[in-house]
Amino acid sequence: MNFASDNSGPVPPQVLEALTRANAGYAMGYGGDALSASVADRIRDLFEAPDAAVYLVPTGTAANSLALALLCQPFQTVFCTPVAHIHEDECNAPEFYTGGAKLTLVPGGDRMTPDALNAAIAGEQTRGVHGPQRGPVSITQVTERGNVHSLAQLAALCDVAKAFDLPVHLDGARFANACAALGCTPAQMTWRLGVDIAVFGGTKNGLMGVEAVVIFDPDRHSALEFELRRKRGAHLFSKHRYLAAQMEAYLTDDLWHDLATRANAAAARLRAGVEAAGLRVHNDTQANMIFFEAPARLHRSLLGGGAVYHPWGDLDNAADDAPVTGRLVCDWSQTDGTIDAFLDLLTSQG
Amino acid sequence: MNFASDNSGPVPPQVLEALTRANAGYAMGYGGDALSASVADRIRDLFEAPDAAVYLVPTGTAANSLALALLCQPFQTVFCTPVAHIHEDECNAPEFYTGGAKLTLVPGGDRMTPDALNAAIAGEQTRGVHGPQRGPVSITQVTERGNVHSLAQLAALCDVAKAFDLPVHLDGARFANACAALGCTPAQMTWRLGVDIAVFGGTKNGLMGVEAVVIFDPDRHSALEFELRRKRGAHLFSKHRYLAAQMEAYLTDDLWHDLATRANAAAARLRAGVEAAGLRVHNDTQANMIFFEAPARLHRSLLGGGAVYHPWGDLDNAADDAPVTGRLVCDWSQTDGTIDAFLDLLTSQG
Amino acid sequence: MNFASDNSGPVPPQVLEALTRANAGYAMGYGGDALSASVADRIRDLFEAPDAAVYLVPTGTAANSLALALLCQPFQTVFCTPVAHIHEDECNAPEFYTGGAKLTLVPGGDRMTPDALNAAIAGEQTRGVHGPQRGPVSITQVTERGNVHSLAQLAALCDVAKAFDLPVHLDGARFANACAALGCTPAQMTWRLGVDIAVFGGTKNGLMGVEAVVIFDPDRHSALEFELRRKRGAHLFSKHRYLAAQMEAYLTDDLWHDLATRANAAAARLRAGVEAAGLRVHNDTQANMIFFEAPARLHRSLLGGGAVYHPWGDLDNAADDAPVTGRLVCDWSQTDGTIDAFLDLLTSQG
Amino acid sequence: MNFASDNSGPVPPQVLEALTRANAGYAMGYGGDALSASVADRIRDLFEAPDAAVYLVPTGTAANSLALALLCQPFQTVFCTPVAHIHEDECNAPEFYTGGAKLTLVPGGDRMTPDALNAAIAGEQTRGVHGPQRGPVSITQVTERGNVHSLAQLAALCDVAKAFDLPVHLDGARFANACAALGCTPAQMTWRLGVDIAVFGGTKNGLMGVEAVVIFDPDRHSALEFELRRKRGAHLFSKHRYLAAQMEAYLTDDLWHDLATRANAAAARLRAGVEAAGLRVHNDTQANMIFFEAPARLHRSLLGGGAVYHPWGDLDNAADDAPVTGRLVCDWSQTDGTIDAFLDLLTSQG
Repeated sequence: MNFASDNSGPVPPQVLEALTRANAGYAMGYGGDALSASVADRIRDLFEAPDAAVYLVPTGTAANSLALALLCQPFQTVFCTPVAHIHEDECNAPEFYTGGAKLTLVPGGDRMTPDALNAAIAGEQTRGVHGPQRGPVSITQVTERGNVHSLAQLAALCDVAKAFDLPVHLDGARFANACAALGCTPAQMTWRLGVDIAVFGGTKNGLMGVEAVVIFDPDRHSALEFELRRKRGAHLFSKHRYLAAQMEAYLTDDLWHDLATRANAAAARLRAGVEAAGLRVHNDTQANMIFFEAPARLHRSLLGGGAVYHPWGDLDNAADDAPVTGRLVCDWSQTDGTIDAFLDLLTSQG
Repeated sequence: MNFASDNSGPVPPQVLEALTRANAGYAMGYGGDALSASVADRIRDLFEAPDAAVYLVPTGTAANSLALALLCQPFQTVFCTPVAHIHEDECNAPEFYTGGAKLTLVPGGDRMTPDALNAAIAGEQTRGVHGPQRGPVSITQVTERGNVHSLAQLAALCDVAKAFDLPVHLDGARFANACAALGCTPAQMTWRLGVDIAVFGGTKNGLMGVEAVVIFDPDRHSALEFELRRKRGAHLFSKHRYLAAQMEAYLTDDLWHDLATRANAAAARLRAGVEAAGLRVHNDTQANMIFFEAPARLHRSLLGGGAVYHPWGDLDNAADDAPVTGRLVCDWSQTDGTIDAFLDLLTSQG
Repeated sequence: MNFASDNSGPVPPQVLEALTRANAGYAMGYGGDALSASVADRIRDLFEAPDAAVYLVPTGTAANSLALALLCQPFQTVFCTPVAHIHEDECNAPEFYTGGAKLTLVPGGDRMTPDALNAAIAGEQTRGVHGPQRGPVSITQVTERGNVHSLAQLAALCDVAKAFDLPVHLDGARFANACAALGCTPAQMTWRLGVDIAVFGGTKNGLMGVEAVVIFDPDRHSALEFELRRKRGAHLFSKHRYLAAQMEAYLTDDLWHDLATRANAAAARLRAGVEAAGLRVHNDTQANMIFFEAPARLHRSLLGGGAVYHPWGDLDNAADDAPVTGRLVCDWSQTDGTIDAFLDLLTSQG
Repeated sequence: MNFASDNSGPVPPQVLEALTRANAGYAMGYGGDALSASVADRIRDLFEAPDAAVYLVPTGTAANSLALALLCQPFQTVFCTPVAHIHEDECNAPEFYTGGAKLTLVPGGDRMTPDALNAAIAGEQTRGVHGPQRGPVSITQVTERGNVHSLAQLAALCDVAKAFDLPVHLDGARFANACAALGCTPAQMTWRLGVDIAVFGGTKNGLMGVEAVVIFDPDRHSALEFELRRKRGAHLFSKHRYLAAQMEAYLTDDLWHDLATRANAAAARLRAGVEAAGLRVHNDTQANMIFFEAPARLHRSLLGGGAVYHPWGDLDNAADDAPVTGRLVCDWSQTDGTIDAFLDLLTSQG
């Protein structure tokens, strides 16, 4: 009963098989191999973006930070939410990679409203050279709180950015979960709305550690500069074929979409059970995360009973009756059996 | 006949098997899993360094840059050779990770002499706060030109560094090849001589992409700071078990040593044949690289005949008779058959 | 009637005289001259801090950024208010000088409450290596909104910082105005409360461009590192005597205190008149700034009538009746005549 | 008898007078005053560069570092000599301001030869993304060793840079001395040859601390970016008029040229005397520096006899007969009397 994170589970067998296939014989290093080239082509096809530049990196933080470094000068500021991964969970990697840019936190929750974004942007760069200059808008889809922006919501945010002539970065660590939730294509969720660089995440959705950075207009946002920044950041793999192989498996037979669909379905089943047990779920749960509220006592029973997940608050010091939020994340490998076991435990303790 | 690089060949089956084993079930992320802990212990054992802090990162550039960031302030300078990987092949990653430190090139070849190192260090920091301050000494073992420092040579360089109270970094991308060549233990080649941080390379010796950074005195060179810099550099893998699994295979049954021994032996066979063909080899060839000189015409025949390797110079514009150096690198997977095929080609064309 | 800023007025004659005196003959460069040494001694005396390291830099942003660079690692975060100069008015200089640290904005106004500061610090560093680590607390005295922290308020903030073992930086661009307002000594407002590094501002209080950075415990916060960072930041003046001379004038006969007393008195007179005219003043006005609210129409009349000051809001697009805040700043050179002229204008238009 | 540096002497009275004049009344801050605007215009006139962007900064290191930051990406390298100020005397400021770029030292002396520069540039960027990319060429005029490039020499270096489409930075800390030595105009020594950004130094030639950065094509090398980088580097003076006033004095009645002419003439007189005493001078001495060789014994006598200058080598440990180089620098204020006194001392001891 492990719902700690979508980085806790195993990778599907297709990934191991692809690694084994890719392991045959010799290959040029640093992405100069045929598999790497073919995988980039397939991502361009998937995104219906024949001119896009596509690069693989091993972590989501690398993908985000390098993308932001391409979009943001060191004297500018990135607009994001207060709970964005780039702000809370990357130990200043965006500041590092951009050479010291700032992050401006748009007030509100995990989904910016267009008004709040507009006000935040308008509020910067009102003091000439004294304050930071306006830089990219960073949107997280699926959000860190488990919510999915609708295409209309994304479009509205992109429109605000474009009204100020600012580029848009999409943190897509759970890109596939969002596509599956919305029933849309990658193109519909990105460049057609105005996204300039998207991170097509693989690691949280079944890969060992691969993310694709998709730069839709490499004339405007230099592909060569990205390559140099990737190398300088020490993220260019010499044996690049093993990144490419994982991505090949991911793209084949829509595995990326299939894994996300499974994870989302598991979360839906879990949510239904949690709500049936009378507990409140805070987020929309179209994707693969549930934030539910329960008395501290119940969390203790669940965790003591073998469930693994993260409380979202100070459970240690909470009184037994105090409400505490818990986060449950489903990855592709969750089975109905495990979910039902958790729900049984919940019901028996609730 | 691929001698392009030791990153061109496949990984041994043990690595794939270890990945498969590690893939079972759920595991804590970000290095909090049991396998990661056990692998760190085994590296401490291997290095006879029970207090060392050990971290896995995916690339050699990450290992070097993070190690240097721990040892070097931004207003200092790193002492290294003009052909060091950190200078020539990391696209300013050391400058990036250290926050803008300088690299001072010690005149000479790929192995610094103690005198040259001493003079270079003495020459810095003679202008008070105006020039860069003295920082770490970085030694590459095996060098980029295929030479192995003897233990006495390493000791002499460490002694110079210590006389100035400077820390020592060992770039060990080919650490195993050096140990195998010298018949020494990892401890004998590192902390016993005065090395402060060693990179125990895996990628060039049969892994997909894993290097271990071994910090021998984590009280002096903060382990927590390394962890934070690794995260900030976007090199902390969420699914860390897949790095650990590769390293587990590497450590088991001395695979690391066995692979290096094979690679070194292949290079020795190759060298013997090259010299038998009347060609000159520039380097010592204790390890797995050969730099040989041949007329441009011969290189063209070899490359045209199916051999894959890098000329070390401007072959394109060289006259047919002009001597050009070629670099041959053997990885663990080279067979006698391939080597002999290359030598046959060489003999038939030479 | 220029109340635009305390950087708009002239310097007092003593400063020009000191420059002229210092101009005689030859002097060692880079702070090696006798005057520079003597000025540092006098600042140590003034602060009753015989062990302090004291450095002169030309701008407040340099003083703040270099101080923070000494106190903050690149993977940490600085705690400050949302209106702090280091956040709003230094174009990411603190991020630049710290190598990419973050600024955590403590919710509230221009004076942090101890509770809000405590909560902000407690809220960081709760995710292990994933988020930024806790770094220094930065307090601005006088605040950017013209308010003066009482000594008790400063002490309470320092106590919170010390409870987390965090260092404290005091942005004292208007240090003298605060001392004059509180009737306290520099020591009472700094190290006795727990301030680790204070900026003793001169530029806003009558100098051409000099700030002193006072490091109270140079064993803990390395003086040499400060010197190197100052040089690396290009803030070490070769002809350092001209910085020292300004500071010498400032220290002689308590000029620093006298100038600030005059500026504060001018602001008090101005405030009395503004309030007598029936307008509301937002801040406490112990020091030399007034934020007053008036209908847009009145601002337009004042500015049209020759008064020079900054509206604090979008006057251009405000309806005539809309309330808009205006900022009036008095420097040492304001005369009763000018103030009364402004008040006459105000009364005639109001 | 102070020949230690051209930053050791006083400023001419015109500078103090200009400061006094500029001190009248109120002025907009941060360069928004009329004097700052007028000074920029006058520099554009002097350089015959009506479209140039001109900025004042307080130190030569700031001028160089900010100029290089505008011309050099963090993954590039700057080409300069091994004795360039930016390499030896700025404590890694160029690395800091560029965000971690490298400096490639062109082998040779203080004046690069076109061939050596060409070879150095050709040698970089031959390894794709692995090595640093080619960046700006930085030329120092007058060099740190007291030599003046002829216009033909400068042109040849610019031509090499342009052949690789690289920008050129001119470190003109002693710009005026060079112009006076060559009898050329600022335009002839800069943009007409291909210089992209020139530093028009004032500090070493009689100002308290002001350098002008002249960006000849601000469409190509963004003026706004320079302003933001200057602010971020903490080099934007609030009371900018005091920088402008110094520069105003410098520009009026060709004071800049007059001061340099005097300094050069003093050095010529000094050189003649040194050579008449039978000592060898190493450099050309068109400008204001002399590097002369003398037995250690003689240096000791001179320094003991009241002369102030820097030995250029390890005088402390030199045997009495050992030849040691000494550096004599003349600023504008040197009198024939002082020079003759030094020469008398030399003759009496020699």
